[in-house]
Amino acid sequence: MSKPTPLSGFPEWLPPQRAIEQYVVDRIRSTFELYGFAPLETRAVEPLDQLLRKGETSKEVYVLRRLQAAAEDASDESLGLHFDLTVPFARYVLENAGKLTFPFRRYQIQKVWRGERPQEGRYREFLQADIDIVDRDTLPFHYEAEIPLVIGDALSALPIPKVRIQVNNRKVCEGFYRGLGLTDPEAALRAVDKLDKIGPDKVAELLTETAGATESQAKACLRLAEISAPDTSFESAVRALGVEHPLLDEGLAELVLVMQAAAEHAPGLCVAELKIARGLDYYTGTVYETQLVGFERFGSICSGGRYDNLASAGNERFPGVGISIGVSRLLGLLFGADALSVSRPVPTCVLVALPTDEQRAACDRTAAVLRRRGIATEVSPSAAKYGKQIRFAERRGIPYVWFPGSDGAQDTVKDIRSGTQIDADPMTWTPPAADLRQQITRP
Amino acid sequence: MSKPTPLSGFPEWLPPQRAIEQYVVDRIRSTFELYGFAPLETRAVEPLDQLLRKGETSKEVYVLRRLQAAAEDASDESLGLHFDLTVPFARYVLENAGKLTFPFRRYQIQKVWRGERPQEGRYREFLQADIDIVDRDTLPFHYEAEIPLVIGDALSALPIPKVRIQVNNRKVCEGFYRGLGLTDPEAALRAVDKLDKIGPDKVAELLTETAGATESQAKACLRLAEISAPDTSFESAVRALGVEHPLLDEGLAELVLVMQAAAEHAPGLCVAELKIARGLDYYTGTVYETQLVGFERFGSICSGGRYDNLASAGNERFPGVGISIGVSRLLGLLFGADALSVSRPVPTCVLVALPTDEQRAACDRTAAVLRRRGIATEVSPSAAKYGKQIRFAERRGIPYVWFPGSDGAQDTVKDIRSGTQIDADPMTWTPPAADLRQQITRP
Repeated sequence: MSKPTPLSGFPEWLPPQRAIEQYVVDRIRSTFELYGFAPLETRAVEPLDQLLRKGETSKEVYVLRRLQAAAEDASDESLGLHFDLTVPFARYVLENAGKLTFPFRRYQIQKVWRGERPQEGRYREFLQADIDIVDRDTLPFHYEAEIPLVIGDALSALPIPKVRIQVNNRKVCEGFYRGLGLTDPEAALRAVDKLDKIGPDKVAELLTETAGATESQAKACLRLAEISAPDTSFESAVRALGVEHPLLDEGLAELVLVMQAAAEHAPGLCVAELKIARGLDYYTGTVYETQLVGFERFGSICSGGRYDNLASAGNERFPGVGISIGVSRLLGLLFGADALSVSRPVPTCVLVALPTDEQRAACDRTAAVLRRRGIATEVSPSAAKYGKQIRFAERRGIPYVWFPGSDGAQDTVKDIRSGTQIDADPMTWTPPAADLRQQITRP
Repeated sequence: MSKPTPLSGFPEWLPPQRAIEQYVVDRIRSTFELYGFAPLETRAVEPLDQLLRKGETSKEVYVLRRLQAAAEDASDESLGLHFDLTVPFARYVLENAGKLTFPFRRYQIQKVWRGERPQEGRYREFLQADIDIVDRDTLPFHYEAEIPLVIGDALSALPIPKVRIQVNNRKVCEGFYRGLGLTDPEAALRAVDKLDKIGPDKVAELLTETAGATESQAKACLRLAEISAPDTSFESAVRALGVEHPLLDEGLAELVLVMQAAAEHAPGLCVAELKIARGLDYYTGTVYETQLVGFERFGSICSGGRYDNLASAGNERFPGVGISIGVSRLLGLLFGADALSVSRPVPTCVLVALPTDEQRAACDRTAAVLRRRGIATEVSPSAAKYGKQIRFAERRGIPYVWFPGSDGAQDTVKDIRSGTQIDADPMTWTPPAADLRQQITRP
């Protein structure tokens, strides 16, 4: 076999990066569980008609085909890989509604696949970490205020730059547009959603062309989108534009509550950013995007919102609120910026040196004692000269080498970074907490 | 959308089962890391020619096709989903050999896909947990003795039936067959591999037909396959058959060492079972299969062995030893036998009751304090009557309900299983260790 080359869009990490990813996923999971979200996984495939239900062919679905499908068995013929975790979750909720307890809180951390053109931070296979709270028929509003707190806790527990969650409320936009007299608020929203990409002049044109706005209506839409506040002062800024509509009132009241909850729980976490629209028609209340402070150019690394209809079957309807952390995207960008590092590439804390091949059983015993006490340990691959064994530990990044005492003498352990060597008993010796496990840090 | 139905062969767990799976994977990982295996993940797809390299079309590879591939971009046209974790690992090692430190110890816990006919414990999408140790050019034998110890520790840490690892050594079989005068030892091995399926008479016929054995040679092969020992006594049993060959000597010496290491580390874990062949030509030394005691009918839930050539490019060769736990298979079978249960379906330990809607902020503060102390907490969805809020906790399986004290009185916490209610401060109250997290047990 000739040396293989990477596949564009299918990132694979080297062991140190994978250690960081594993750590990040573990911390995220742990925060999600502290908030009572239960772990869930769905299969990687969905029926093609489900994947294409909303006409989302732009996600470039990967379709499966069996290499040797028997003619009589076409069961796999119409399956595709999921392109997000929302479509499978909706299907799962419908399929298992009778066995779930509502409001149902679940987290789901899985790979998804999209056959898009690969570029920086945009992959064909990537890891997402989603939380959603869904209920039957109605979902209390307060869950919309809870989601940013979960994400704030999850991301601030990581050694990554500070995050800023940008929140808005669809009702504010829709109420405002309707109050202005626009009759197609969704078209207006789609135009405003392009603000960062095409600038205000082009958005004004789009508003006129696609949402039937007059020049002054377009200007008002743009003034709304300019409003940004780290507190509840956005409310008076909106009021000052002089537009009135009951839906606007409702949206403003909700956005105030979200901002108040965030201010109490995590000052500085949230900012009300009235240009945030989110592409999909799907959302009906609060919407979220998340920036890394200092890395705003990366775009949103965590987005979501409130929806009224995750899924429905017959008379049943499942409203909910959810958000998705783009784990691969976040890590790929931070790796690219050399913004994360790991103290050592391997989990191993101790290498037990091997004086002679005959002593392997005894060295294995020492290793077993250390492992039972939670200390990751390997035994040296061979009874080479000690200098060579120490270099082996150095090359792997293992901080401690354990030397069995000869002729009944006490064992010793050497910190090969400092050279300090002390007497030690595997039953009692404990490394400093910082050395016990791999540490993830910002360089 | 009408109610969706499950896809045969693509198992999905309900939240309690998923909690068990998560726990099992975490424990396995933690043992692997204690032995110094580094986490690794590879992409889900491989070039089709890699997947079909060994003519393994019987694995029923799933091929990918993009729904809307641009004519000029055929880059995804020849990709398939991996059917195991060995093919991707071999490719990864070749691709990154210059950046890895050898011997390279990695674990990899990922889904794999095979379009086989689904049946009990056999899926089209399933989770595997693999470890491998690979080196450049040569790999010391002692790693073959280490693998069963890792698996013994990993599986005995789980609340599953006791496991028994069946070990054999390919050199014993090949040396024995050659010593007998058989010239196609691989054909003989393939015949003996069918022993449990088709019985000794049919195997004898096969040996005659496909491996050119005489009746007495076939009988000798069967007598070798009958040998089974919980200790090193298999050696004299083999010697008693009177066959001699240098490769047989080498194999017996190695198998003795594997059994001795296992007996010292974990008495009763391993049994020398000379009928164990493993299907693939790939293996060259020790081979492993693993049974659940009392559930032998499940077949092997963890298999692997020593191989001389994981991958090679030019002059480079990567020998190694590895083993794979069939996690989905193991869990599917145990779930089917009702052999595993979880203390509660959700991570949540405490539900903070809500006296009035106005007190939600205060209740959120209590929840935040408990979470900061590692106690998974939710706040009640609504300020319903306390009876209803308690029933909500009961339905979700949450063991404790926290009642905010009114008018400056002390908060209380109630164990809703026993009814015991005590004064409590969120800064200091701690649940019993058994209630802090979900407990996985055998019923």
